[in-house]
Amino acid sequence: MLGKTYEGEVCSAARALEVVGERWSLLIVRNAMFAGCVRFSDFQRRLRIAPNVLTKRLGDLVDAGVFDNRPSGGSRGEYVLTDKGWDLQPVIIALTAWGDRWAAAPEGRPVVYRHAGCGGEAAGGVGCKRCGEDLAPREVEADVADWVREVRGT
Amino acid sequence: MLGKTYEGEVCSAARALEVVGERWSLLIVRNAMFAGCVRFSDFQRRLRIAPNVLTKRLGDLVDAGVFDNRPSGGSRGEYVLTDKGWDLQPVIIALTAWGDRWAAAPEGRPVVYRHAGCGGEAAGGVGCKRCGEDLAPREVEADVADWVREVRGT
Repeated sequence: MLGKTYEGEVCSAARALEVVGERWSLLIVRNAMFAGCVRFSDFQRRLRIAPNVLTKRLGDLVDAGVFDNRPSGGSRGEYVLTDKGWDLQPVIIALTAWGDRWAAAPEGRPVVYRHAGCGGEAAGGVGCKRCGEDLAPREVEADVADWVREVRGT
Repeated sequence: MLGKTYEGEVCSAARALEVVGERWSLLIVRNAMFAGCVRFSDFQRRLRIAPNVLTKRLGDLVDAGVFDNRPSGGSRGEYVLTDKGWDLQPVIIALTAWGDRWAAAPEGRPVVYRHAGCGGEAAGGVGCKRCGEDLAPREVEADVADWVREVRGT
């Protein structure tokens, strides 16, 4: 976990990155979410991370409440996403969409996310909760809370 | 830039993290996108990053095509987001939403993103492109391309 790297940042994105911004963290979450990884050995086989790094990342993610570590037959138990962990899905889908568009494999999209119910493609996006429009990036602006302006002295 | 950290990963999210997964990278992009940061000194004042780290990050993001570095009065020029950079907005909005929900400041949400056109709140989410439903995390599954299964040998 990044801990206090972004301490000066009054920003929920920075708070999120304190929890999941360390190398491998989001890919560990992704493999639990979409590839059925549960045991330490599942993550290690899929991600080929050094065991000491994987131990640290999973431990930090358990401490942060992203995974539950439940007893099972193995000595390390099972790592099961909590609701807090599942709730990272829009982040992973948004990163994937960006990678598909801007850093794609020459063979095409490696993974398509689908609605399990109907098989349609699951896609992220940003919309307006008032008028319902889909929003392009330049149509969005930040409305900074007054208490943040006071903290920043701006 | 992470470079080849995730080389073994056939995954667009991993490809995206190679570009923007390094510490501070997404916060630099966010400050260009929403806080009007353009010059090196703008980013430094807002983020209080060590100059050598900021120099490296901005250089990597220019190399990756996330920023254009344009000549201006100052010696370092101006750093202007490209379309590739603007396209990271859904990632930043998704991270912010997660931080708002799970790692919120006690004072409340520091920033609300708004549709500049109507002032409504801009929100991310995952929906089905076929049936139009908003999707909860457990309703989404990964459809892995055949060529990826071959690469992985699974």
